[in-house]
Amino acid sequence: MTLTIGVDVGGTKVAGGVVDATGVVVAQTRRDTPAADVGKTRDVIIEVVTELVAGRDVDAVGIGAAGWIDATRSTVLFAPNLAWRDEPLRAYVSTAVGLPVIVENDANVAAWAEFRYGAARDAEDSMVMFTIGTGVGGGIVLGGELVRGAHGIAAELGHMLTVPDGHQCGCGRLGCIEQYASGNALVRFARAGARQEPTRAPILLELAGGEAEAISGPMITTAARAGDPVAAEAFAQIGRWLGTSLADMAQILDPQVLVVGGGVVDAGDLLLGPTRRSYADALAARGRLPVAEILPAELGNTAGVIGAADLARRL
Amino acid sequence: MTLTIGVDVGGTKVAGGVVDATGVVVAQTRRDTPAADVGKTRDVIIEVVTELVAGRDVDAVGIGAAGWIDATRSTVLFAPNLAWRDEPLRAYVSTAVGLPVIVENDANVAAWAEFRYGAARDAEDSMVMFTIGTGVGGGIVLGGELVRGAHGIAAELGHMLTVPDGHQCGCGRLGCIEQYASGNALVRFARAGARQEPTRAPILLELAGGEAEAISGPMITTAARAGDPVAAEAFAQIGRWLGTSLADMAQILDPQVLVVGGGVVDAGDLLLGPTRRSYADALAARGRLPVAEILPAELGNTAGVIGAADLARRL
Amino acid sequence: MTLTIGVDVGGTKVAGGVVDATGVVVAQTRRDTPAADVGKTRDVIIEVVTELVAGRDVDAVGIGAAGWIDATRSTVLFAPNLAWRDEPLRAYVSTAVGLPVIVENDANVAAWAEFRYGAARDAEDSMVMFTIGTGVGGGIVLGGELVRGAHGIAAELGHMLTVPDGHQCGCGRLGCIEQYASGNALVRFARAGARQEPTRAPILLELAGGEAEAISGPMITTAARAGDPVAAEAFAQIGRWLGTSLADMAQILDPQVLVVGGGVVDAGDLLLGPTRRSYADALAARGRLPVAEILPAELGNTAGVIGAADLARRL
Amino acid sequence: MTLTIGVDVGGTKVAGGVVDATGVVVAQTRRDTPAADVGKTRDVIIEVVTELVAGRDVDAVGIGAAGWIDATRSTVLFAPNLAWRDEPLRAYVSTAVGLPVIVENDANVAAWAEFRYGAARDAEDSMVMFTIGTGVGGGIVLGGELVRGAHGIAAELGHMLTVPDGHQCGCGRLGCIEQYASGNALVRFARAGARQEPTRAPILLELAGGEAEAISGPMITTAARAGDPVAAEAFAQIGRWLGTSLADMAQILDPQVLVVGGGVVDAGDLLLGPTRRSYADALAARGRLPVAEILPAELGNTAGVIGAADLARRL
Repeated sequence: MTLTIGVDVGGTKVAGGVVDATGVVVAQTRRDTPAADVGKTRDVIIEVVTELVAGRDVDAVGIGAAGWIDATRSTVLFAPNLAWRDEPLRAYVSTAVGLPVIVENDANVAAWAEFRYGAARDAEDSMVMFTIGTGVGGGIVLGGELVRGAHGIAAELGHMLTVPDGHQCGCGRLGCIEQYASGNALVRFARAGARQEPTRAPILLELAGGEAEAISGPMITTAARAGDPVAAEAFAQIGRWLGTSLADMAQILDPQVLVVGGGVVDAGDLLLGPTRRSYADALAARGRLPVAEILPAELGNTAGVIGAADLARRL
Repeated sequence: MTLTIGVDVGGTKVAGGVVDATGVVVAQTRRDTPAADVGKTRDVIIEVVTELVAGRDVDAVGIGAAGWIDATRSTVLFAPNLAWRDEPLRAYVSTAVGLPVIVENDANVAAWAEFRYGAARDAEDSMVMFTIGTGVGGGIVLGGELVRGAHGIAAELGHMLTVPDGHQCGCGRLGCIEQYASGNALVRFARAGARQEPTRAPILLELAGGEAEAISGPMITTAARAGDPVAAEAFAQIGRWLGTSLADMAQILDPQVLVVGGGVVDAGDLLLGPTRRSYADALAARGRLPVAEILPAELGNTAGVIGAADLARRL
Repeated sequence: MTLTIGVDVGGTKVAGGVVDATGVVVAQTRRDTPAADVGKTRDVIIEVVTELVAGRDVDAVGIGAAGWIDATRSTVLFAPNLAWRDEPLRAYVSTAVGLPVIVENDANVAAWAEFRYGAARDAEDSMVMFTIGTGVGGGIVLGGELVRGAHGIAAELGHMLTVPDGHQCGCGRLGCIEQYASGNALVRFARAGARQEPTRAPILLELAGGEAEAISGPMITTAARAGDPVAAEAFAQIGRWLGTSLADMAQILDPQVLVVGGGVVDAGDLLLGPTRRSYADALAARGRLPVAEILPAELGNTAGVIGAADLARRL
Repeated sequence: MTLTIGVDVGGTKVAGGVVDATGVVVAQTRRDTPAADVGKTRDVIIEVVTELVAGRDVDAVGIGAAGWIDATRSTVLFAPNLAWRDEPLRAYVSTAVGLPVIVENDANVAAWAEFRYGAARDAEDSMVMFTIGTGVGGGIVLGGELVRGAHGIAAELGHMLTVPDGHQCGCGRLGCIEQYASGNALVRFARAGARQEPTRAPILLELAGGEAEAISGPMITTAARAGDPVAAEAFAQIGRWLGTSLADMAQILDPQVLVVGGGVVDAGDLLLGPTRRSYADALAARGRLPVAEILPAELGNTAGVIGAADLARRL
């Protein structure tokens, strides 16, 4: 059976894996990301691939990275967490390792992995996935293929307008969904709640050493599971907004399945309950018409490696 | 050259045409729609087809109708302006006229016509179209095909959430784009403006016989072109909202072209100027990245006939 | 003990009463309002006063009417439900009945009655009252006196901006509180709910003969009390918005008491529960600081007569 | 003529002045604020008063400070920029200097100064003032007296709800006017504009050494006056929101005059032009009815000293 390699280039780690034709990871490795240094980041990617290729018959390499990738899947136009600007990553790595390479947006890669081997594996045609990290990423599959857009930058779901004149986004606009349904939003809501009503955030504040400003995403998950009201409400708030955006996607693309990924899905129904209620409310107009179900992603952190490898296989 | 027939079933008229393989309408006819009577509406469709078929070698029939059509393009699940509920229109007409038939949503049909022969004919792959009538309809083409969705009801663009807790929509939700960028919204904005500031709506009020409540869509176009401030502002308001929704579509699907259709495009830059400014503002975050241009639809009222006939040809 | 007369001029009824110095109504009468005829409306007011004066020692007459009253409390500048435009009502009635007369806005009159003899009678200094009728009216008492404004038109609380770009108001603006917390809004929310989810509006729809469009305000109160989910949610929706506006008033004026009046208060906690929760949420920022309590009005329909008579007493 | 002393306790400076009965400052002094130290801040206030009293016949002392002051104007309940919590400032200073003392909220003090001797000196009865600093403060005068509220905390105008679900406020709520019309909002809007469209912010970026994040309020005023588009738009944005809040105040309190104060008024019509347009639009519903004019504050930084001294005179 042929093997391909997937590399997931994050802001802190470069993770690589050898993946077989059934989506199984047969070997893995990881390095720290020297994020500030363009040349060194490339070198680390090449190190990872070289290590994984050794002694194996590998067909191709897929690389997933946060940022805008051009339509030919060769060049990283812009990466928010790395120093890359118009970086011809495909050519560079391909030359160095002597294998075909594709470069793809990280949220697209994760969506592809979930479509092929994860939560949406029973969907043969279409899915839309929101990946909730510090920001909000998106991936769209239609007709069994990733939608990449005429200019390579489709599925920028994080910047759908959600609240006109709402919370200011890093992109300059006010009110993008990224300001209401991201990990950063979760933290913002939880900190505000803990500051205003500390007696309703006992577990959160204990985890954070008494300092609302020290509250982190994982603390919110832990506290919400343990029954902390403010933590649970922070999940309910992002779920409420996520549900309306998922309803918009159902109305725009009517996919077979909707998937929610990212670390926040560890919170389970604390997130997905409010999400599904908000989704159902927003679709009430559709009455009895069938719509996609909302499923949590299943592959977790390995989605990046699996999806990148699988996309490389399709070269 | 083979011929197909397109039928556009509206709330007031049933229009039919014979269309050749280059999108040219070679013959046409029309009847009034007996909208309240399911059986008679079917009969009128059959009359129109029968008249057009006479003496011609026709391959197939396409029917466009407002409403939700099932995924097999056979049954009208629900039509807001007609009495149809779960109407098996395809089987009925096909049996009656002895030709293959497809049924398609009217906004999809119009989008398909513009993609093949109209404003987006130079786009070989993708477009998104908003059709502004009394409501807001949508059509999406990706990979050279209409996106119909897993349940046949994709491209319900009129019900994207635009203003949370905003103006109540007929669908039950508050704040759908249909309440901000439709012909009905245009009329609502113009009437409110004329009531509040009659001195700034001199032409509008003259056309409406002095009664703000008598202002209609065509009056607003006429008055805006003649320089009436309130009429121009009504177009600017719907353009502002339309621009933000078009920006959302660019970020979600990144199509080659964006098209705006419906009677309002007769207002030209009075509508498209504010639409493009709002679109550019909303995309400012993308900086220098290329995006789709916004074009006015070109085929006007014949889009329904041409698009339905062309979809039938592809059976 | 001296007596004064209060007259409450509504769109359908002219109600009059003789009120003593303790706020007790000692005699009453009422007539239908000939709303379309300015002269006849005045005549009916005079008839009512003349009937009530007969055989009594009356000091003065107060008239409450919907609309904008000038700062000298003499002239009705504009009345939405009556034909009055710049109507010098004070002079006309005073001449006819030979008594001092004042004219006051109906929501101000009701607020004054509640301040003196109703829900806020224990407050010696300040209150703010929202009166929920078809629209939303307001009354403000500070320093033991009605706040009438520099131009006589203070306390137009119904047109506070609540949702930017929200539901269009009769005043021309989008998003006034009147579109979210009035009786009309209650009916709009309930009808939309019953159309979208008829199975959750069984009692409402039975009361309305199966027609969502036939749902009226009193039906919603009846149905909500009987457990109809859509009816209860309609009250919760207006309560939610009312609570945020009450919180704004607490932050602007910090009154001793906040009062909610109008027919909707018959719904009791179905309205006031959500109102108080929304109010508390909006004031969470204040932490432990004391704020006004929200009380339901107590005088019902007689507030207009009592308040107008009491204001006349203070001439 | 009798003299009183006003002290303006800010986060960085304690300014004091001797003021005569016509509002003229006849002597001044200032010290740095030891903001983190409760005891030292009190000592500095006493030093300032002692220095100013020397050799003069002073009747009373007024102290203005940011924060919530209790209804008896004795105790600072909470001060955002100082270490005070339930600080009995009146008793402490009065004992130390042997004079009657009142403590008042700083925005109230500034409003009082403008009402008596500044922009609103021709208004004998009522005004509402918004003070735009890093946050948004408010002051209300009705019947010739400051409105202090039943619990001493009226005129918290900065926390009026402006955009439901809008930008998160330090108070915990989303969408307070303070997030849309404050100096902080001005800086936020300008920085976002300069990041997204640097070519439209040439002067701003030059002043900020090329770093959008280094843009400050005074730079925005300078750049806007010199024609920088992004800087001008930042003023237009806060003016737009300020105008709608001023319209709300006109509809709630109908004062004789509306005043806008704080450093931003140095921008003149760059701020007040958009503010007045937004105000007029929001009031369009009122048609021809008279409303308050919007005036810029006139006393600048000395308003705090003058207002505090004048309030002390009225003890």
